[in-house]
Amino acid sequence: MASLKSQQFGEFDLINTYFLRNSSAISAPNQEGVNVLLGIGDDCALLAPPPKDHIIAVTSDMLVENRHFFSDADPKLLGHKCLAVNLSDLAAMGAKPTAFTLSIALTHINHDWLAAFSEGLHVISDRFDCPLIGGDTTSGPLTISITAIGHLPKNTALKRSNAVVGDDIWVSGEVGDARYVLGILRGEWPTIAGYENFSHRMNAPEPRVDLGIALRGLAHAAVDISDGLLGDLQHILKASHCNAVIQIDQVPVSALFNTLGQDLRRLCSLRGGDDYELCFTAPTRHAAQIEAIGRNLNLRLTKIGQITEAMKDVDSANTSTHQFGRMHLIDQEGNSLNDTQTQIYLKSFDHFETS
Amino acid sequence: MASLKSQQFGEFDLINTYFLRNSSAISAPNQEGVNVLLGIGDDCALLAPPPKDHIIAVTSDMLVENRHFFSDADPKLLGHKCLAVNLSDLAAMGAKPTAFTLSIALTHINHDWLAAFSEGLHVISDRFDCPLIGGDTTSGPLTISITAIGHLPKNTALKRSNAVVGDDIWVSGEVGDARYVLGILRGEWPTIAGYENFSHRMNAPEPRVDLGIALRGLAHAAVDISDGLLGDLQHILKASHCNAVIQIDQVPVSALFNTLGQDLRRLCSLRGGDDYELCFTAPTRHAAQIEAIGRNLNLRLTKIGQITEAMKDVDSANTSTHQFGRMHLIDQEGNSLNDTQTQIYLKSFDHFETS
Repeated sequence: MASLKSQQFGEFDLINTYFLRNSSAISAPNQEGVNVLLGIGDDCALLAPPPKDHIIAVTSDMLVENRHFFSDADPKLLGHKCLAVNLSDLAAMGAKPTAFTLSIALTHINHDWLAAFSEGLHVISDRFDCPLIGGDTTSGPLTISITAIGHLPKNTALKRSNAVVGDDIWVSGEVGDARYVLGILRGEWPTIAGYENFSHRMNAPEPRVDLGIALRGLAHAAVDISDGLLGDLQHILKASHCNAVIQIDQVPVSALFNTLGQDLRRLCSLRGGDDYELCFTAPTRHAAQIEAIGRNLNLRLTKIGQITEAMKDVDSANTSTHQFGRMHLIDQEGNSLNDTQTQIYLKSFDHFETS
Repeated sequence: MASLKSQQFGEFDLINTYFLRNSSAISAPNQEGVNVLLGIGDDCALLAPPPKDHIIAVTSDMLVENRHFFSDADPKLLGHKCLAVNLSDLAAMGAKPTAFTLSIALTHINHDWLAAFSEGLHVISDRFDCPLIGGDTTSGPLTISITAIGHLPKNTALKRSNAVVGDDIWVSGEVGDARYVLGILRGEWPTIAGYENFSHRMNAPEPRVDLGIALRGLAHAAVDISDGLLGDLQHILKASHCNAVIQIDQVPVSALFNTLGQDLRRLCSLRGGDDYELCFTAPTRHAAQIEAIGRNLNLRLTKIGQITEAMKDVDSANTSTHQFGRMHLIDQEGNSLNDTQTQIYLKSFDHFETS
């Protein structure tokens, strides 16, 4: 086998060189710790059970070249982002990361690309104490598929179905930057000076893991904003059988929008995705505690609206049905947006819709 | 949203129609049960912790069009196979399947293909009580990525590093059919009458989950044969720091090889992959119990060799080193194969090697 390996860089060499850490031997599993009983190098990885009275959270995301990232994307940022989007899903459930698997298809072996990609991946993996425990490598069109596993105390999950009428609706950080930067790169709107200072919001989103964990027992429902604030919030409304009223001009945006018009600000902040902030609902009595969490984490937390009852529709046969997932959008003058305007901001990015 | 949906078949329609079962509502998670606390439809799926004194096994496999399957592959068989290869990894660790996630990139929405693919997937999912709990769908070159989760009692894992000198080496079922059928389809060798009766071995492999579970406490190490019997066995030898002697003509093959020559039989059975049988090692004192398991499962189990000590090499400076992973191949006349012959049979399929 030695002669083969010296001639060719195979699958095992690839895993050893870029993904297996602190070990030079193919056969020696590493990255073992409290949670990881057996890492890369066997048919399965082995994990210890979660702590007592905890349950397990599992999430998967797939990133495809030219669909989720440009071909010339910085590989180090890409390595960060592909794990960040999965950690963001764990955060939206209130779960603490345990470990992840990576399956990756590569068109060819590009050592510079792999060194940078794996570095980006390992840095965020270390930062969130979420080791790579296994996966698959193959040749094929560049596709990155990650499954992240986490754990959380039972009965604390921030499920989409948990929102309650009267809950405040909160958003973490600021939303819209990622969509605005994407629009510049796509030529949808003109570039502006200094926009590069905000491109990390699209390229290197920060998963709100600490926030998700801190919200256990305080928030009812949460979702991470990947497809657009209102579209993602609508998942909560539908799952919880309720509606919402949103003060759209209270939605927090960055300084990037200071000199931009109202329309673009609303479009990017309400409909834009890829910011990976959390949108969550919580009873008003917890508002002070939530504000304290924001101060502790040095993270802006903004109330943008409230959960309301599902509207009762009575049809011609006098049968009443409840309509879930409706949003009543109110601007800074206190005026309600009409249905057409509302639909524009509601439309999320869908990977199979063509418009 | 209703008007959008009637015009376009989006990501949520796709999940609802083909992957979410026994439910017509997007928001209602289903497939909940003893293990699954929350299925498809939230940021994460939620699983109950494993049974007392059990640990968690995790495995991921990615299948790429034209690399792991032909473009015209029967989608129902493909749905079976993409879960089967992951269950096979759980089997090789002695784990019982718990649940799985599916991330899939599709070039376009083909309803016939999706209906057949999801049917194949659901049938094997039901048969092994391993529900689909989440994942991702996106557009992109056809790529299927599955992560399967299982559980097993602690200290029973059939780790590759557990083989012990003196262990018998066993193979389940028969090996070589999948490689022989692939060779016909690729034009590597002539077709023969009746080969179609064996093509399910390539297209619809049977994961040996019950065998893996039955071997807990009896076998030491196991691997599933995906890349080739000897190449996969070599992973055990390297991880366990030992060597092996193999009676190559005792390797079990099907009736397909009755009329074929010895060379092709050896090539397909020793080097061919994709059969997803188990190769495992066990102390000789457990042979009778292992034979009984074979009878109970109606599955041929064949002893093909033995684990031996690592050879000690003494170099010119009189320093001794142990060489792991060497195989001594013996034919039916009791003759040893030379190094060149051995290397031919040892070479596994590697997705990044070009030869």
